[in-house]
Amino acid sequence: MAYFDEINQIQYEGSTSKNPFAFKYYNPEEKINGKTMEEILRFSVAYWHTFTADGTDPFGVGTAIRPWDHLKGLDLAKARVEAAFELFEKLNVPFFCFHDSDIAPEADTLKETYEHLDVITAMIKDYMKDSKVKLLWNTANMFTHPRYVHGAATSSNADVFAFAAAKVKKGLEIGKELGAENYVFWGGREGYETLLNTDMKLELDNLARFFHMAVDYAKEIGFDGQFLIEPKPKEPTKHQYDFDVATGHAFLQNYGLEKYFKFNVEANHATLAGHTFEHELRVARINGMLGSVDANQGDTLIGWDTDEFPTDLYSTTLAMYEILLNGGLGKGGLNFDAKVRRGSFEPEDLFHAHIAGMDSFAIGLKVAAKLLEDRVLEDFVADRYSSYTEGIGLDIVEGRADFHKLEEYALQLGNIQNRSGRQERLKAIVNQYLLETLSGK
Amino acid sequence: MAYFDEINQIQYEGSTSKNPFAFKYYNPEEKINGKTMEEILRFSVAYWHTFTADGTDPFGVGTAIRPWDHLKGLDLAKARVEAAFELFEKLNVPFFCFHDSDIAPEADTLKETYEHLDVITAMIKDYMKDSKVKLLWNTANMFTHPRYVHGAATSSNADVFAFAAAKVKKGLEIGKELGAENYVFWGGREGYETLLNTDMKLELDNLARFFHMAVDYAKEIGFDGQFLIEPKPKEPTKHQYDFDVATGHAFLQNYGLEKYFKFNVEANHATLAGHTFEHELRVARINGMLGSVDANQGDTLIGWDTDEFPTDLYSTTLAMYEILLNGGLGKGGLNFDAKVRRGSFEPEDLFHAHIAGMDSFAIGLKVAAKLLEDRVLEDFVADRYSSYTEGIGLDIVEGRADFHKLEEYALQLGNIQNRSGRQERLKAIVNQYLLETLSGK
Amino acid sequence: MAYFDEINQIQYEGSTSKNPFAFKYYNPEEKINGKTMEEILRFSVAYWHTFTADGTDPFGVGTAIRPWDHLKGLDLAKARVEAAFELFEKLNVPFFCFHDSDIAPEADTLKETYEHLDVITAMIKDYMKDSKVKLLWNTANMFTHPRYVHGAATSSNADVFAFAAAKVKKGLEIGKELGAENYVFWGGREGYETLLNTDMKLELDNLARFFHMAVDYAKEIGFDGQFLIEPKPKEPTKHQYDFDVATGHAFLQNYGLEKYFKFNVEANHATLAGHTFEHELRVARINGMLGSVDANQGDTLIGWDTDEFPTDLYSTTLAMYEILLNGGLGKGGLNFDAKVRRGSFEPEDLFHAHIAGMDSFAIGLKVAAKLLEDRVLEDFVADRYSSYTEGIGLDIVEGRADFHKLEEYALQLGNIQNRSGRQERLKAIVNQYLLETLSGK
Amino acid sequence: MAYFDEINQIQYEGSTSKNPFAFKYYNPEEKINGKTMEEILRFSVAYWHTFTADGTDPFGVGTAIRPWDHLKGLDLAKARVEAAFELFEKLNVPFFCFHDSDIAPEADTLKETYEHLDVITAMIKDYMKDSKVKLLWNTANMFTHPRYVHGAATSSNADVFAFAAAKVKKGLEIGKELGAENYVFWGGREGYETLLNTDMKLELDNLARFFHMAVDYAKEIGFDGQFLIEPKPKEPTKHQYDFDVATGHAFLQNYGLEKYFKFNVEANHATLAGHTFEHELRVARINGMLGSVDANQGDTLIGWDTDEFPTDLYSTTLAMYEILLNGGLGKGGLNFDAKVRRGSFEPEDLFHAHIAGMDSFAIGLKVAAKLLEDRVLEDFVADRYSSYTEGIGLDIVEGRADFHKLEEYALQLGNIQNRSGRQERLKAIVNQYLLETLSGK
Repeated sequence: MAYFDEINQIQYEGSTSKNPFAFKYYNPEEKINGKTMEEILRFSVAYWHTFTADGTDPFGVGTAIRPWDHLKGLDLAKARVEAAFELFEKLNVPFFCFHDSDIAPEADTLKETYEHLDVITAMIKDYMKDSKVKLLWNTANMFTHPRYVHGAATSSNADVFAFAAAKVKKGLEIGKELGAENYVFWGGREGYETLLNTDMKLELDNLARFFHMAVDYAKEIGFDGQFLIEPKPKEPTKHQYDFDVATGHAFLQNYGLEKYFKFNVEANHATLAGHTFEHELRVARINGMLGSVDANQGDTLIGWDTDEFPTDLYSTTLAMYEILLNGGLGKGGLNFDAKVRRGSFEPEDLFHAHIAGMDSFAIGLKVAAKLLEDRVLEDFVADRYSSYTEGIGLDIVEGRADFHKLEEYALQLGNIQNRSGRQERLKAIVNQYLLETLSGK
Repeated sequence: MAYFDEINQIQYEGSTSKNPFAFKYYNPEEKINGKTMEEILRFSVAYWHTFTADGTDPFGVGTAIRPWDHLKGLDLAKARVEAAFELFEKLNVPFFCFHDSDIAPEADTLKETYEHLDVITAMIKDYMKDSKVKLLWNTANMFTHPRYVHGAATSSNADVFAFAAAKVKKGLEIGKELGAENYVFWGGREGYETLLNTDMKLELDNLARFFHMAVDYAKEIGFDGQFLIEPKPKEPTKHQYDFDVATGHAFLQNYGLEKYFKFNVEANHATLAGHTFEHELRVARINGMLGSVDANQGDTLIGWDTDEFPTDLYSTTLAMYEILLNGGLGKGGLNFDAKVRRGSFEPEDLFHAHIAGMDSFAIGLKVAAKLLEDRVLEDFVADRYSSYTEGIGLDIVEGRADFHKLEEYALQLGNIQNRSGRQERLKAIVNQYLLETLSGK
Repeated sequence: MAYFDEINQIQYEGSTSKNPFAFKYYNPEEKINGKTMEEILRFSVAYWHTFTADGTDPFGVGTAIRPWDHLKGLDLAKARVEAAFELFEKLNVPFFCFHDSDIAPEADTLKETYEHLDVITAMIKDYMKDSKVKLLWNTANMFTHPRYVHGAATSSNADVFAFAAAKVKKGLEIGKELGAENYVFWGGREGYETLLNTDMKLELDNLARFFHMAVDYAKEIGFDGQFLIEPKPKEPTKHQYDFDVATGHAFLQNYGLEKYFKFNVEANHATLAGHTFEHELRVARINGMLGSVDANQGDTLIGWDTDEFPTDLYSTTLAMYEILLNGGLGKGGLNFDAKVRRGSFEPEDLFHAHIAGMDSFAIGLKVAAKLLEDRVLEDFVADRYSSYTEGIGLDIVEGRADFHKLEEYALQLGNIQNRSGRQERLKAIVNQYLLETLSGK
Repeated sequence: MAYFDEINQIQYEGSTSKNPFAFKYYNPEEKINGKTMEEILRFSVAYWHTFTADGTDPFGVGTAIRPWDHLKGLDLAKARVEAAFELFEKLNVPFFCFHDSDIAPEADTLKETYEHLDVITAMIKDYMKDSKVKLLWNTANMFTHPRYVHGAATSSNADVFAFAAAKVKKGLEIGKELGAENYVFWGGREGYETLLNTDMKLELDNLARFFHMAVDYAKEIGFDGQFLIEPKPKEPTKHQYDFDVATGHAFLQNYGLEKYFKFNVEANHATLAGHTFEHELRVARINGMLGSVDANQGDTLIGWDTDEFPTDLYSTTLAMYEILLNGGLGKGGLNFDAKVRRGSFEPEDLFHAHIAGMDSFAIGLKVAAKLLEDRVLEDFVADRYSSYTEGIGLDIVEGRADFHKLEEYALQLGNIQNRSGRQERLKAIVNQYLLETLSGK
């Protein structure tokens, strides 16, 4: 353990601890409804933001001070693995995620890139033996290199499609090797810059062909991780095909892929698409398509993906509410697809940020569990829709009504009486639960 | 003809005419590829904006000065019919559209409302006998009355569902009676204000039940118009279920409704959802779901639906480009779901606005037709994707490739060569076509 | 007391009370730094949202059920006064605010409108004698009537300017009569729809002339309330001249008005302008221009003014932080420029909503006060900028540096060392204070 | 001439030319109102986008293929100068602009950086002797290097302030040496990431101190270029202090700097701030603060600065309209602060893009000049505000009215008559001018 000497093992110290390097709310052993917080929350560290990124932004170079800055090539890649497992252990997170190019440098030829990947994959596998940390998911970076300038599976150039296929093939093999629980597709370049030069139909057909090939290959090699699509509306492309959960769902159904895929829902991608995080989780959940979560937050006054560590307790509470209603995340987890701000460039900020995010989701979990336990919203909702449990409402739901019957019913109705939706009161209740749940009142 | 005495029949006078009450570009008789402009563009007047609305906005009462302002009740409704047919004739538009509540006042009881509708429907039918104008579509207003406060088909109150069903039943009967070519659903209140009190799954299930009943009833009575869903992301609700074309498509597929419905795409709704107008048209087109168009424009610096008359020639050109590639609009048309600004409150502004919109789409049509005739974009696009017409690309498209074959191919690839997407050049070409097509150069 | 019989006097019951009609956090008698919560927060009810509005939105008519719905004209106006004072008393709020047209119906002639205002003003004055409630501010509605279609003080029509002047003259007289502590200008129509028909220079010159006349008239009659401008970027106009605090400040300085005006900062207007609420408060505060606050919240995923009751505790905490640093609000207050949702149409929702808002600001106050007491942010900030308290930094601040001296200094600098901004850690601390302050830990 | 061999001198060939490397609308010699297009438009190439940038975006590395890609350090810097003057000449542009770090590599020490700058400045000066091209403006890059992570003149670190001062000192010396007509400040890092750690008052005070020192030093060395502030609301910082023209104007007035500065207005920065380009130009113009223009365009459906080459003819027309009303740009120019899309990575795209931009502004100039010549909008506006040229309106404008007089006038007014603002008609007229001006009808 050599990279974060100044940081000790992070412990749970309780809500009033002043120690910045302690969990105040996340207690991995604490049980909620029979499962531990660790089992429910399934936290994951994102390799790219934490070990590869350096704080570059469109107007500035990297600022991050990292203990491995002086290294290059495979030496750098190896140092990052060491640092990663040190950080996983100190933070006591059970999962991590990576793109292929995060863990090993891309070389001039594909063959050599494969060799780099094999070296680091073996090293990671070795480290995993002595660790409880597991691979939540891996993926192939098909957006950084210039070859993807016009897309990967949706490139106008068939060579790029082929190259991307080779990358995903390797990715599935690595996933199998490391026991990945999921495999993610984020199509950062799968979209368009201008319709003037774009054959959208061919591009979408090709994207579906690509996904079918991936499904086939996974079966062939016995990779049993869950396939996940990660929607995002735009950035870097002007328009990305996987705009949001509903758009992805339309695509999957259109091409007969809906039984092989679920969604990896990201908070900041939701808001860029004009939705709340909980909306996207809800849409995925009620369609049986909630696979995993990229836990971060955006700034809705800003029009790009800021990938901030999640600290908004309303967002974590409402997210955990959906997740608990989903019966948990299954093979998925809460992956911190989040980066320290460019101005938070010191190594210890990596710990501050993860602690902030883990505590925030722990709070969200506890408040959501208490809301559900008390059936605060459930009883209100059940009562609100109770007209569908009897009479004409039940006829509608059970398929015994048609326009004739409904018209006949409507003609004899007097003034229809609705009831208040009580939004203001419900928000006050959520505030009360937020403030009181943790104080044990 | 008594309402717009000061306005004469609008004629085509050519591009340099200074007469504000003349078409300068729209020549209904002019043929483009064998069809007249009138046949291609299928312009429609929106009854609500032009005959019912008064310029009210959230901070101000109506400003519109209308010759029928002094009337009330059915007298007002009848005057509007007279004024409508006068305007249709003077503008020489072949179609119109309405909500039930636009044409006849809603009464205290449903029965009486039906009677009002019957009176005005008969009157409209009578007027249509002496006119070439046809009904592009009708629909039921299920958003204005307080009963729809929590939705219509997605209301938490089954009585409201029943009432809405009766309204649509009557709407389909009126549509059949007047020979409507389409029937539209815009679900202004079919969405939610807060997830805290919402059972999204039940609401969507009910919405699908409602649509299936409508399909069944149309079959029963022999109504053969096309069903259309009009997506809009929000406003008046915080989140509307038919967010955009893709979301609507997911819903339709999810509930086995995709063969009965197409989309009525609105420009301003597209931009509210974060898309261009042409994006939504393209998505609908390549899925065989482009039914009709609500022709207007928004202000992308403003976050609400402004429903402006369409004057942006880029937008009309790119819209007509998609429509021509779609082989025209079929049963659909270009409906001016557009209102004169609150500050344009004089009766003659109704004519200025429609002339502006009709001329703008006529220009768009001519420029788009010329772009297609010269294959300006088509040849560029065909060349750009040509790698899929041979070799490995053709294998991909024709289903002869899998990850093994593609990896083998990729491993022997050297540096992949892409070609420029030429966005700047293509935009300059569009400008050149815009400026030169009409001058006949 | 006849309008809200079912609601009793709202009392403070503490954080764990389950009584929906109780304050859980707002205890008007509780002292913070020597002043009571009531004295610090200076809550105000907005007459228009609570007694005049009915839930109308751009796509629907009113839904609100109010005990005075059956009345009309001056009878309605009088009933609202009675209901208002009943609500003020039951909620125990110390202030209220109104537009002239909220309290009395506008008549056909200005003279008659004056008479209506006089009747109701006398009635309000009478009620105030037996009540502790005071008038925080009044204003003139210069946006609803059609005459303001092109603006009031910035109208293209001089008659409208004159009419508006008469309205403000009367408003100042009413303000003096009722002891208003402020007078507000919100220029909902003072802006433009399109630059194509707008003389912006003349309109701004006229706006300044109007404000100077108001200042002169206030002096003449001895009205000593504070003048306030309420910035808003748009809606109903496409572009409103008082876009945000900085824009208003530029205008005031440009026309020599800065010493007579402060700002009434509204949360939802801030976010519509692309700023946080706390940003606008900060900008006003450091310029000595923070006058009063319209306490509400918006939905940043929605592009119009939703005027929701404030329940976001981050927003209330950061707002109170600025207000405490400002030494309080002086003559200003926290006015609930907030409306119950259209779906919250029952009378009791008015109480739920105000309680939610008052509790939320009480929490914000307590958390902010504790943050300041512990100097959590202050010490961090002081340390962060400490380089300006000595050496070259002090030279800069005290005016002893020029480019020569600074270049000389820079040339001898080695690598400049910056320190982390610690954003993630600071956000975690704010969460901890939010959760722990009220539990008394 | 060695870098763009395949491109010949760009000539004016007229609107119907099919030659992609020809001007179709920009004819530098053509006179408009007595001045040549070249004199009016004063086009400038932005060194950074055209010679330094490589197509990097937040998710991808550079894609640009440039003939100087193989070089490094000062050799690269020199090659860029050669290529720049070749491009300037082939495009026949009269101006260019640069940041210090565009032209010469920043070294480890400030002293060495100065030496690099001296070498390249001398080389540029030498090239300028044989060229007509002049320096529109230069500026110092104070945002890319990690030292500016917390700002430059607004940094929390006084060392950074000093370093930035040295950079601007050198920049003014280079500006004087090369005869720069302006000096620009764009404060990309002069803003904040979070208010939690920010002393906004000190930062703004320091920014003003910095500007005063710059003014003093310019006087001292006799640099007579115009100082310009370039507003931008955000990106890279969450909030930039120079949000828009009005915000910048408030700041300048607040610190007594308004007589030394004007604004460099950028189209894409305007839309990011929620304004149209023409709005920002108008605000600057009527305050006598319009200095220069960064000519580009954004995508209003995208929330970041896309810096596209300007091709929207509405935008160029309305911009030129403001510029002509301003009496031209004075010392300013139209600087293409625009980059080819990442997918337009071939060298010839640089020419396509500049030709597209120059033609688009040439069209805008001709249409705007014709609109002004015919007084199309001027006469409408004059008539619209004519009530201020007589009677009570003239009294208002000439200071002879007060609230007493206006009330007296208002009390005798009957119904106020307004006139339509005619927005739809005016937009149709603009379309007609756009289409007909160039065809000479």
